This record gives sequence, C-alpha cells and structure tokens, in this order.
Amino acid sequence: MAQSLEMRFSGWGIDADAGDLSDHVVEWLEARFGGPLPQRVAAPESENVRIRKSQLPRAVEAKLSSKLGAANVSTDHLSRLVHAAGKGYPDLLAMRGADKIPAPDAVVYPADQADVKAVLKICTKHGVAVVPFGGGTSVVGGVSPLRGNFASVIALDLRRMRSLISLDEQSRIGVFAAGLRGPELEHLLRSRGYTLGHFPQSFEYSTVGGWVATRSAGQASAGYGRIDEKLLGARLVAPAGELNLTARPASAAGPDLRAIVAGSEGALGVITEASLEISPAPEVTRYEALMMPSFAAAAEALRALEQQGQAPDVARASDESETEMGLAFAGIEGAKGKLLEGYLRGRGAGSGALLVLGWEGPHGTIDDRRRAALSLIKPHGAVGLGAGAGRTWAKNRFSTPYLRDHLLDRGVMVETLETSTTWANLMVVYRGVGDALAQHAPVVGCHISHLYQSGASLYFTFVAPQSAADPLSQWEAAKHEACRAIIEHGGTITHHHAIGVDHRRYLKAEDGEAGVAALRAVKQSLDPRGLMNPGKLL
Amino acid sequence: MAQSLEMRFSGWGIDADAGDLSDHVVEWLEARFGGPLPQRVAAPESENVRIRKSQLPRAVEAKLSSKLGAANVSTDHLSRLVHAAGKGYPDLLAMRGADKIPAPDAVVYPADQADVKAVLKICTKHGVAVVPFGGGTSVVGGVSPLRGNFASVIALDLRRMRSLISLDEQSRIGVFAAGLRGPELEHLLRSRGYTLGHFPQSFEYSTVGGWVATRSAGQASAGYGRIDEKLLGARLVAPAGELNLTARPASAAGPDLRAIVAGSEGALGVITEASLEISPAPEVTRYEALMMPSFAAAAEALRALEQQGQAPDVARASDESETEMGLAFAGIEGAKGKLLEGYLRGRGAGSGALLVLGWEGPHGTIDDRRRAALSLIKPHGAVGLGAGAGRTWAKNRFSTPYLRDHLLDRGVMVETLETSTTWANLMVVYRGVGDALAQHAPVVGCHISHLYQSGASLYFTFVAPQSAADPLSQWEAAKHEACRAIIEHGGTITHHHAIGVDHRRYLKAEDGEAGVAALRAVKQSLDPRGLMNPGKLL
Ligand SMILES: Cc1cc2nc3c(=O)[nH]c(=O)nc-3n(C[C@H](O)[C@H](O)[C@H](O)COP(=O)(O)OP(=O)(O)OC[C@H]3O[C@@H](n4cnc5c(N)ncnc54)[C@H](O)[C@@H]3O)c2cc1C
Ligand SMILES: Cc1cc2nc3c(=O)[nH]c(=O)nc-3n(C[C@H](O)[C@H](O)[C@H](O)COP(=O)(O)OP(=O)(O)OC[C@H]3O[C@@H](n4cnc5c(N)ncnc54)[C@H](O)[C@@H]3O)c2cc1C
Repeated sequence: MAQSLEMRFSGWGIDADAGDLSDHVVEWLEARFGGPLPQRVAAPESENVRIRKSQLPRAVEAKLSSKLGAANVSTDHLSRLVHAAGKGYPDLLAMRGADKIPAPDAVVYPADQADVKAVLKICTKHGVAVVPFGGGTSVVGGVSPLRGNFASVIALDLRRMRSLISLDEQSRIGVFAAGLRGPELEHLLRSRGYTLGHFPQSFEYSTVGGWVATRSAGQASAGYGRIDEKLLGARLVAPAGELNLTARPASAAGPDLRAIVAGSEGALGVITEASLEISPAPEVTRYEALMMPSFAAAAEALRALEQQGQAPDVARASDESETEMGLAFAGIEGAKGKLLEGYLRGRGAGSGALLVLGWEGPHGTIDDRRRAALSLIKPHGAVGLGAGAGRTWAKNRFSTPYLRDHLLDRGVMVETLETSTTWANLMVVYRGVGDALAQHAPVVGCHISHLYQSGASLYFTFVAPQSAADPLSQWEAAKHEACRAIIEHGGTITHHHAIGVDHRRYLKAEDGEAGVAALRAVKQSLDPRGLMNPGKLL
Repeated sequence: MAQSLEMRFSGWGIDADAGDLSDHVVEWLEARFGGPLPQRVAAPESENVRIRKSQLPRAVEAKLSSKLGAANVSTDHLSRLVHAAGKGYPDLLAMRGADKIPAPDAVVYPADQADVKAVLKICTKHGVAVVPFGGGTSVVGGVSPLRGNFASVIALDLRRMRSLISLDEQSRIGVFAAGLRGPELEHLLRSRGYTLGHFPQSFEYSTVGGWVATRSAGQASAGYGRIDEKLLGARLVAPAGELNLTARPASAAGPDLRAIVAGSEGALGVITEASLEISPAPEVTRYEALMMPSFAAAAEALRALEQQGQAPDVARASDESETEMGLAFAGIEGAKGKLLEGYLRGRGAGSGALLVLGWEGPHGTIDDRRRAALSLIKPHGAVGLGAGAGRTWAKNRFSTPYLRDHLLDRGVMVETLETSTTWANLMVVYRGVGDALAQHAPVVGCHISHLYQSGASLYFTFVAPQSAADPLSQWEAAKHEACRAIIEHGGTITHHHAIGVDHRRYLKAEDGEAGVAALRAVKQSLDPRGLMNPGKLL
C-alpha cells in the first residue's frame, strides 16, 4: 500500500510535527485556565501500542487473499492500528491511551467494484462485519471497528479506487471512484479546467465516498453547495444487491434514492462511485476579512447576503470569543494578524466578530459581486481589514487540525461540534449550546460557515484543561450537554459531521420513531444480516 | 363541501365551456390527419354515468361519520364520481365511456391531522384502502380508486385542510396545510409580500400535498426551484406512525427523510403539512419571446444561460413542430400571434424554435439580468419577438388544459409525457422519443422547460385522430413505446409527473431491483397492511 495515503495513527497528517505550542498561546491558555499547562507528553510510538490479536479466521483471510491478492489483505500491526479509529477527540484519546485498542481484524484494499462485491460475499458467508474506510477522518466514531454480533470485523479501505472515471464537460458531471481524496481529485479536475469546489477542513485526507456517506459540507458550500446537493448519481454495493443510480439532473420517479445513499455512513453498503456536479475552475480567487460589531450583526449581514442572492462563495463569521481565540492562536500558524490585533486593541478585545468572505469565479465577475456584497453588509457595521487578513485565513485553513495535536500534547481538551437551524432560531441555539458548553470549558467559540435561504450552520469549538483522571468522561459530559441543548433548542444534531457512534442516541429525537424505523427497514433490505458498519448511524 | 373546489368529473375546470375548436385549428388538424374530424360529441352528464354501488360496509361508514361528522363522509353519486379519476388521457377516456366506472366507495374530508389519524386507524382496523386526494390533477393514474386486496376503498380528500399554518419571514419558511391549492396559497402569501413561486400548469387546482407527493416542478422552476428543493420539513401520517420533520436548512443526520416524503405518492401515508421555502413576491415580471434558428440551437442557448448563472426564472424552448402547433392553436386562446406568424412566413414555416424567457424580481434587477441573458443567447441566433408575444404566453399558460377537452370532443387524442436527461444526452433522448411517438401520432411536439446545471427536461405532446374502436389501446401502445425509448436512451421515466399507475412497470429500470426493494421496505415499515394507495408507485 502507498503509505503516503496513510495518516499517522495518533493524530493529523503524515509526520508528527516536532513543533510545540508557541509561548504566546501557552500564556493565553494558562490565563484562561487559571493555571499552568502540563509538560509536553507526545503520543506513543505505534510499536508501543497494544491491540488485540486478529480474530479473523485464517480460512476467511485466505479466501480474501485469493480474491484480492495477498498484498491487499493486511493483518499487520501498523495497518490495523491506523484503521482502528477516526480523528475525533475520543479517537485521539484512545490512541494516546496506547492500550487495549480495539482494531479491525484485517484491512482489505479492493481494486474495483468486483472486488468490493467479492469481499461482501465472503463476509456475508462467514459472518464478518465490514467497516467502509475512506480517509478515516470521521469525527463521530464512523470508522470505529465495532463488530456488532460478529466475531470479527474488517476495515474495507477504498484507497486503491482513486480514478476520475469519466468527465462530461457539456453536462458538467464528473464520475469519481470513491477512494479519491481532495487534492488528487482537484488535481485531476483542474488539469481539465474544472473544480468540484468541495473543501472540508479535512480536504487533504477525506474521500469522495466519505463525503457522500456523511453528507459533508465544504468551506465554499455557499458557492458550490453541499456534497448531497452535487450528488447526481451513485453506485452502492450492498450485501443484498446494488444501487446503480445513473446521473440525472432531476426526476419525479418516486422517492429519490440518491438521498438514501447520501448519509448512509457505510451502514447500508459500500459507495464505489459518485457522479457529482462540477464547476469551471475559478480564474480569480479573492478573500477578504472584515470586522463586525458583534456576532449577531455578522449573522444578520450573512442573512442579508444569502437571501438577496449576493452570498460570496466562502462566508464565515466568528463570534467574539472565536475571534479572540483566532488571534491568540494565529501566531502558531505563522500568520501575523497585526492588523486585527491593532483593530481589537483600538476597540477593546472581545468586542468584534471576524467575518471572512471569499469569491471565486471568472475574471470580470468578482469585482461586481464583491462590491454588491460589501455594500449590503456595510449597514451592519462592517469594517474592512483588507485582503491580507483574508488571504491569511485561506492559506491556513487546512492547518488547524495539526494544532489540535499540539494541544493534546499539552493536556488540553479541544473539541468541535456543529448544528444548523433557521435564521429566526439561530441566536437561540447559539446561546443555548454556548451556555451548555460553558459549564464544561473555560473557552468556547463559535462560527457560522454555511449559509442557506432558511438558515445557517453553527460550529462550536471548546477548549478546557484535560481531566487527567478520566478525560473520556469529561468529554462525554460536555458533548452530551451540548447535544441536549441542540435538540432542546431545535437544531439538527449534526449539520455536516454525520451520526456515527457519537450522535446515534440522538437520531430518534431528529427523525422520530417512525423515521428511524423506516431507515432500519432500508438497512434490513440492503443488509439483512447487518454486517455493514454495525453500531453506526442506526 | 365547497363545490367550487371540485372540477367537473369529465374534464378540466369547473364549467364545461360551451365553445368548440376554431375553424382554423380544425383545418390545421384535418390537413395533418388527412381527413375530417368527427362531429362534436360532448362528455356525458354526470347523472348518466354509471358507477358501482358503494362497497363500504355500513358500520365503517358510521364510524367515519361519527368521527368526522356525517357531512364529511360522502357516498353520493357525484362525490364519488369526481373522485373516480385524475386528469390523464385514460382518465378522461374512462369518464367519457360513461360506464362501469370504478369509483371510491366513499369520500372522506378530514379537518385536521387528528382526523387523518382517526381515518387511517379505522381503515387499518377494517381493511379499507385509502387514496389520498389533493386536487385530483394526477396524469399518471395517481388517484385511481384501486383497492388492492381490500374489499373497499375511500378517497381521502384534503380540501378542508387549507391554511397557512405559519410564516417565518426571517427564515423565509411557510408551513402550509396539505390541501391548499395554488391560487389560494399565492393569495395568502402575496398579502404578506411573498410567493412560493410554484406554478405547475395545473396550478389552479393542484395542492401542496399533491405537489410534494409527486415531486412537482413549476413553470418558473429555473428561478424558484422544484418543490422537492423547497421542501424543508413535512408531516406525514402513516398507518404505522408519523413522520414529523421540522423545517431545517440542512443536516447530515443520516439519509434525508424529506426525500422519502417527497415522491411518496400517497403510498406511504398522508402528507398533512409541508414547510416550504418562500421568496419575496416579485415587484416586476417580464416575459419575452424570441425565435431561435433550431431547437438544437435553443437548447444550447439555454445551457449557456443556466451554466453561466444567467438563467431567467422561466425558460421554455419549443421545438420546430411545437412552435408551429402553438401558432396554429394560438387562435383558440384568443392570442394574436401575428408577429410570430409574420416571422415564420418570412422564414418558411416549421423552421424556427420559439423561446420564451421570463424574469421576476425586485425593481432594478430585471434589466441587468435580461441584458446579460440576451447577450449570451444572441450568438446562438436569437431573434427577438418582443414582450407582447411573451405576455401572451404568460397570460395563456394555465389555459391549455381546457383545450384538451375541446379536442376530445372532436375525437382527437392529445397526450403529453416528459423526461429529463443530461445536456450531453438531450438530443439523443429527444430524437429517440420523438421517433417512437411519430409511429403513433402525425403531430408530435416537444419543449424544454426546466433547466439544471447538468441537464434539462423534455416535454412531449402528441396528437392523433382517436381510434374509435379502442382508444385506450391506441394510447397504451404510444405511451409504452415512448417509455421504452426514454429508458433505452437514458432519460428518467418521469421528470415531474410521478410514477402513479402508468409508470409503475418502468420503475425497476430506473431504481433497479435493490432500489425498489428498499422502497418497498420503507412502505412495509410505514404501511404494513398496504392500505395506502395500493397499485401506485410500488
Ligand atoms: C480536522 C477535521 C476537519 C473536518 N472538517 C470537515 C468539514 O469541513 N466538513 C465536513 O463535512 N466534515 C469535516 N470533517 C469530518 C470528516 O472529514 C468528514 O465526515 C468526511 O466526509 C469523512 O470522509 P472520509 O473519507 O475521511 O470518511 P471516513 O472517515 O473514512 O468515513 C466516514 C464514514 O463514512 C463511511 N464511508 C467512508 N467511505 C465510504 C464508502 N466509500 N462507502 C460507504 N461508506 C463510506 C465510513 O464507514 C464512516 O461511517 C472534518 C474532520 C476532521 C478530523
Ligand atoms: C393539465 C395539467 C397540467 C399539469 N402540469 C403540471 C406541471 O406543470 N408540473 C407538474 O409537476 N405537474 C403537472 N401536472 C400533474 C399534476 O398536476 C401534479 O402531479 C400535481 O402535483 C398533483 O397535485 P394534486 O394536488 O392534484 O394531486 P392529486 O392528483 O390529487 O394526487 C397526486 C398523487 O399524490 C398523492 N397525494 C395527493 N395529496 C396527497 C397528500 N396530501 N398526502 C399524500 N399523498 C397525496 C395522490 O394519492 C396521488 O398519488 C399537470 C396535470 C394536468 C392535468
């Protein structure tokens, strides 16, 4: 296997960055926490982490090997370890615990649709649970190697399926193999003059199949749309059959099966291909930062932009707390942030809400759109910080995940969660969830980053000194209170992270008894033995 | 019951229009058919139409009456007759046959959600099939009173549920009771400054519940979107439970249940409310007609508009044949069409393709959008016909259904069917379906009326002398060949008319075995006894 596709098991990215938090950040955190951070404790080396012996029967391994080739069925320590978890906070905690880590009993790497079918057939016959594995960037336990009622479980890693299967320029449809990751996909498209325009923060490692399976939303969703809005067709191989949905612009032929594939989270089958709407690659990209007098004013400005058809392609408004946090942390990422600091010093820290806007498109369209947008938000009190600050954000937008590892090294719990609701209800949910989190973390920030006619997303970050005794329970308590607040105040339990393990107990509050029963019926139909990703989603 | 909500059983609208086809149209048809049209035979009077005696057990009728009030449970001849069919060609044929018409055994009129639940409970207990009935404008047999394995069947007519339940102006969400029809809904919204922007040709009679149940698309879908794109939340009462989906802008909480409600065609349960995205009522409306050198050129012009973000709110391109037909028929509808005729005479009839574009929106935006659009389509050979011709189209756009009745009176079969496909495949499907229909009808026309980044809809009209001996088989043969051609060439079996009875045999070609099985599983979960709209969709 090409190891370069594999992140290190205990954190983000490929190389453990030797760096540490800057003094500035440490000071800032210590001031908030009211005490010193512990000394740096790095994550363990992979060979020092203990995982259970593989439970996959030899006969099954032999069958898989004879179908896929022995090189494509791995039971070695490292392969199993890197497929043992996603990248949520509890995942990273477990990996740092270095002991009794549940891991898949084997990792298989199919080359194509036929291989996937063969694997599911073997697993059905022998009662082996299957966890579809894309980039492994799930933050909700989506790739945890749960085995349900089965004695063994494999991770089915789609990394060998990474082609651009076809490109229909006239209809602007790309058909992609499920294992393609962000950078490679964009490279393939850009060389033909197109972009998918899908940039989740996990872009560098997450995959087409993972995006569709989780109904992912990228940072430029205001302009290019969510992945489920771009999904025109798909292939999903399930134990009991196959969905092969041809790319179609629109149809009234009964309920839309694409909406069953999107969000299926590996629990219904393996997505092998997706037909997605693509866009011309932008000729110009322009980012810009502004300061708003308050988060509420920023939200109103974004609502005006969206509802008047003037939304930029990227739109992100941080609340006062996140704005301050962003400045404090900017040092780490090499950004200067001088302008911002000057501005905040002038007004008093904590009083402004940072707004980042980005436009992408052909020459000659950006200026007009930008002008129209800026004139709309001016009445809401926007003060320009210039393109420099905007570019800094754009440059660093995929680097935050690395920061999390540094914080963990220093005994800091940092976690995010997200929801969406209507504009009318946005500040209600914002306050409700914020208050709940404030019980558990001295630092809580929030931003809006996805806009809709009817509402927007809210993305919370909370930071606290890690409980040395029981960090998992500490996280669980905060997470649970936040989820309860989301539900109580009418938000969705997840706007783009999916259900996985973590949100499973809240699904009924969202879909109701009858809704969950209907989804279970779909699962029963496609996966009657229940081997697909047990313990997730449903 | 307010009789004004009821169309006449045998055709469109409330009053049988005493008018007949103009001499001009008759001549035009006779020239194409190569022979005279039969003399006018009007549809029978309702009292002369024979329907089967109601099979609803007295005890069940009594129970329904005691729950809903006797006035809201009808078994009289006329109520049953007007609920005996939709408005497809076979429906109208049957009604004109005047004999052995299958009709629902009773019609019930619930006042609210609780009534709907009570009715389903009674029907579950006593084994009575239920056909949800909105406006009864289905053209695919969606409201045919099939009883499946049950001894009796009722029509559940939602006309008493017609309120605007709530309006959230900040989030632009209207919550509508399912029985609201187009004009009343627009009236309620316009008085508050909003529009739904949903204008199917059946607008005058079709309902919110029917739109959602069939995934309807209105004439202004390019601007306002399809109904399934506007659907943010819904309530669906099923025999086994209830889906109560709160309006949410977006979510990643597993598969989207809204996509199970949309297109459910009464086969899963009764939609009682829908939360739909609304828009500000337009201050200005501007329609315009142009002539394109060919249908292919018109299609390319529309693709350019849509893909460059310059699509007007209404966009409709007729092929050469429909353009000619439209001119011939314009007389009937009181339109002059002088300009068009002059144009066509100049170029030779049959050589141009009519393009109608419409813009709606606030003052000061229309001009720029219009200019940008016109400059984009000019290179495709567009010649302006002026706003007069555009207005004529807009004025008459809901009147075509009345024309169909006049044609039927004169022994003319006129039927429509529709599909959508990708831009790259559009002309392939166009030719394939056109060729299939040409085997059955001397006059075949087509238009594009719904645009997407990835493709467009195709809407065919075919006209032929009616077979006196067996008009139903004549229709079936043409319909079947057209459907086969749609599937063979890669179109969807229906872009906005739904599956109903007529397309049921083709659903497997679209969704595959596993897809149909998954939908059946959903049905089994929500409607285990199978009483909801048997014989439709699945
Ligand atoms: C630092 C960080 C930032 C993130 N930022 C964003 C963001 O901006 N927007 C966003 O939407 N998400 C974000 N996420 C969450 C995550 O990246 C997304 O859920 C992503 O879509 C997962 O893709 P993946 O390929 O890594 O899937 P995985 O993590 O491998 O799998 C996710 C789920 O999908 C299933 N799955 C994966 N591939 C397939 C397949 N081919 N067929 C069937 N099921 C499959 C898995 O079984 C699992 O249930 C972020 C995560 C991290 C760690
Ligand atoms: C002349 C003419 C023009 C048309 N033009 C268009 C057009 O431009 N665009 C378009 O999309 N369609 C068009 N149609 C088709 C038809 O109008 C649509 O399908 C419409 O959405 C049906 O609405 P309705 O209220 O009349 O539903 P009905 O005909 O009463 O029912 C249609 C289906 O939906 C089900 N249903 C109805 N209400 C409910 C409910 N509350 N809960 C659950 N199920 C329900 C019924 O059981 C049935 O299966 C046209 C039809 C005609 C006759």
